[in-house]
Amino acid sequence: MNNEQLVLAKRPDGLPGDDVFRFEETDVKKPGENELVIESIYISVDPYMRGRMNDAKSYAKPFNIDEPLNGHVLGRVIQSNADSFKENDVVTGHLPWKKYNTIPAESVQKVASTDVPLHLYLSTLGMPGHTAYGGLLNIGKPQPGETVVVSAASGAVGSVVGQIAKIKGAKVVGIAGGPKKVKYLTEELGFDAGVDYKADDFKEKLAEALTDGVDVYFENVGGTVSDEVFKYLNRFARIPVCGTISSYNSKEDNGPRVQGQLVKSQVLMQGFLVAQFADDAEETSRQLAQWIQEGKIKSEVSIADGFDKLPEAFRNLFTGNNFGKQIVKVSDALD
Amino acid sequence: MNNEQLVLAKRPDGLPGDDVFRFEETDVKKPGENELVIESIYISVDPYMRGRMNDAKSYAKPFNIDEPLNGHVLGRVIQSNADSFKENDVVTGHLPWKKYNTIPAESVQKVASTDVPLHLYLSTLGMPGHTAYGGLLNIGKPQPGETVVVSAASGAVGSVVGQIAKIKGAKVVGIAGGPKKVKYLTEELGFDAGVDYKADDFKEKLAEALTDGVDVYFENVGGTVSDEVFKYLNRFARIPVCGTISSYNSKEDNGPRVQGQLVKSQVLMQGFLVAQFADDAEETSRQLAQWIQEGKIKSEVSIADGFDKLPEAFRNLFTGNNFGKQIVKVSDALD
Repeated sequence: MNNEQLVLAKRPDGLPGDDVFRFEETDVKKPGENELVIESIYISVDPYMRGRMNDAKSYAKPFNIDEPLNGHVLGRVIQSNADSFKENDVVTGHLPWKKYNTIPAESVQKVASTDVPLHLYLSTLGMPGHTAYGGLLNIGKPQPGETVVVSAASGAVGSVVGQIAKIKGAKVVGIAGGPKKVKYLTEELGFDAGVDYKADDFKEKLAEALTDGVDVYFENVGGTVSDEVFKYLNRFARIPVCGTISSYNSKEDNGPRVQGQLVKSQVLMQGFLVAQFADDAEETSRQLAQWIQEGKIKSEVSIADGFDKLPEAFRNLFTGNNFGKQIVKVSDALD
Repeated sequence: MNNEQLVLAKRPDGLPGDDVFRFEETDVKKPGENELVIESIYISVDPYMRGRMNDAKSYAKPFNIDEPLNGHVLGRVIQSNADSFKENDVVTGHLPWKKYNTIPAESVQKVASTDVPLHLYLSTLGMPGHTAYGGLLNIGKPQPGETVVVSAASGAVGSVVGQIAKIKGAKVVGIAGGPKKVKYLTEELGFDAGVDYKADDFKEKLAEALTDGVDVYFENVGGTVSDEVFKYLNRFARIPVCGTISSYNSKEDNGPRVQGQLVKSQVLMQGFLVAQFADDAEETSRQLAQWIQEGKIKSEVSIADGFDKLPEAFRNLFTGNNFGKQIVKVSDALD
């Protein structure tokens, strides 16, 4: 039986052209003990794969040159040497981009039901759906009445994010490119508003949609679209950072935007004010005083002498001319 | 009795020069019922005050032109019309920058003990200490053996952050400006390493200190120093964002760095991968399937037909030519 595979011919520079890919004829390997032969039915293409085409350390291993690309595939078993699978079982798994894969039975799972459109196992019931669900509910935590904004809103992840947010009672604003997608958000998916980031009046329309600010921003795109959304963040807003698709093919310096780094290492970054810990103030004071007494915390202080030294002492904070805490002494009364 | 106050004469452009401030003679207001007259002993100057000098909406109200600046003050009661205070009580509170303030008794608190150096109530036992404690332990959550990095490390907040991290068993790397401060970190405060961001070999020294990466980065400075630290973030690192002092006086566009916005609205931003929710995968699948069945989640799919369409389908993800989830159909076997 003839087989075909798609290999990475070279690493792309920007958007991957045809020269980045190479189709190859190959054969179908005979299955060994506990192995299956899977016929690929649907192959998923996903944005994160672009990162794997680069030779850079990240959460997913880079694709190797001259080897098949790989990702989520839905297929059917056409030959089984494993007790747990039989011919025509529908399965999903992370597999090489080949028409036929010969793999250990543990590499795939049977789908839960074949009564749904099978491509859903690569979208809403697959990795993109789980990404939307996990990121929105564990990090975004939308509350009824809050405003949830999602970028790449008509996409595989974004469309599920917005619909779950609606189920949870939030007001949902989606950002997508072009009138067709924006219309789909409000008319088909029930979003409260859609904003077209490609339109000339993007900033104005976004402002109109965000009169209540933003409580959750599900970040899929990064770049200047997100820079604009950030202006509307409400107090205690949450930003699940899923990806930054705007930068994946960019050859330009993307500026000091941190989103990509946060995703790569699954990092939590949180702005805070001391006021939010006010309930613990008494215990905090007690503990700090104890550590000072025990000699575990030392303090350096720069004391400027005299009320007239206030402006200079203030400037020292920024010039680095102070050492430790900067204070101005105004009176000798307690010396 | 003569009094003196320091008012904001005009809003600064960059580092506040002398013309931003104006000293004024004034008088001491007679205390009414339940009021106190407080003599200022120590006045705290803090970086966040720079933001209040601008006429911009933020978490703290802008200072008003021609009115006294204000902030944390330690003082003593010199006259009391309140039962709960007597002469010579040592108090702290948020007060105008005046030598003498006549204020309601509720505006100040007595200090817990006068056996410690009193300036500690404006540093380690005051707002900076509470900021360090709350941000590091609630957001940073350092674990024994982890690496904690703190910028502005010899400052009022940073020095406490590093010492608490040591108490919690972490390896601590401090970043400060100049050899004197860096030496202080390791020789006086017991940090494991200090790195001088003003030195020519900053990047090399930082790399040497961060061979184990960064698990907690307590962000005080922003700007290019932080850009460099971000390169070393470990998986599941935490970044309490306290401030970005490098930008407070900057007249230049600071680039699309988000830290300032995160602080302003106390925002949580978290990079994630679907893998971190793997324990909930079964429940996620069940819930998504139910919502699909109930018609609460709809899915759009773009299906390209044929194995040879993989490269084009992949490019569609970035050009926006797809609609919803992009999939490539490789076989008709299940049609």
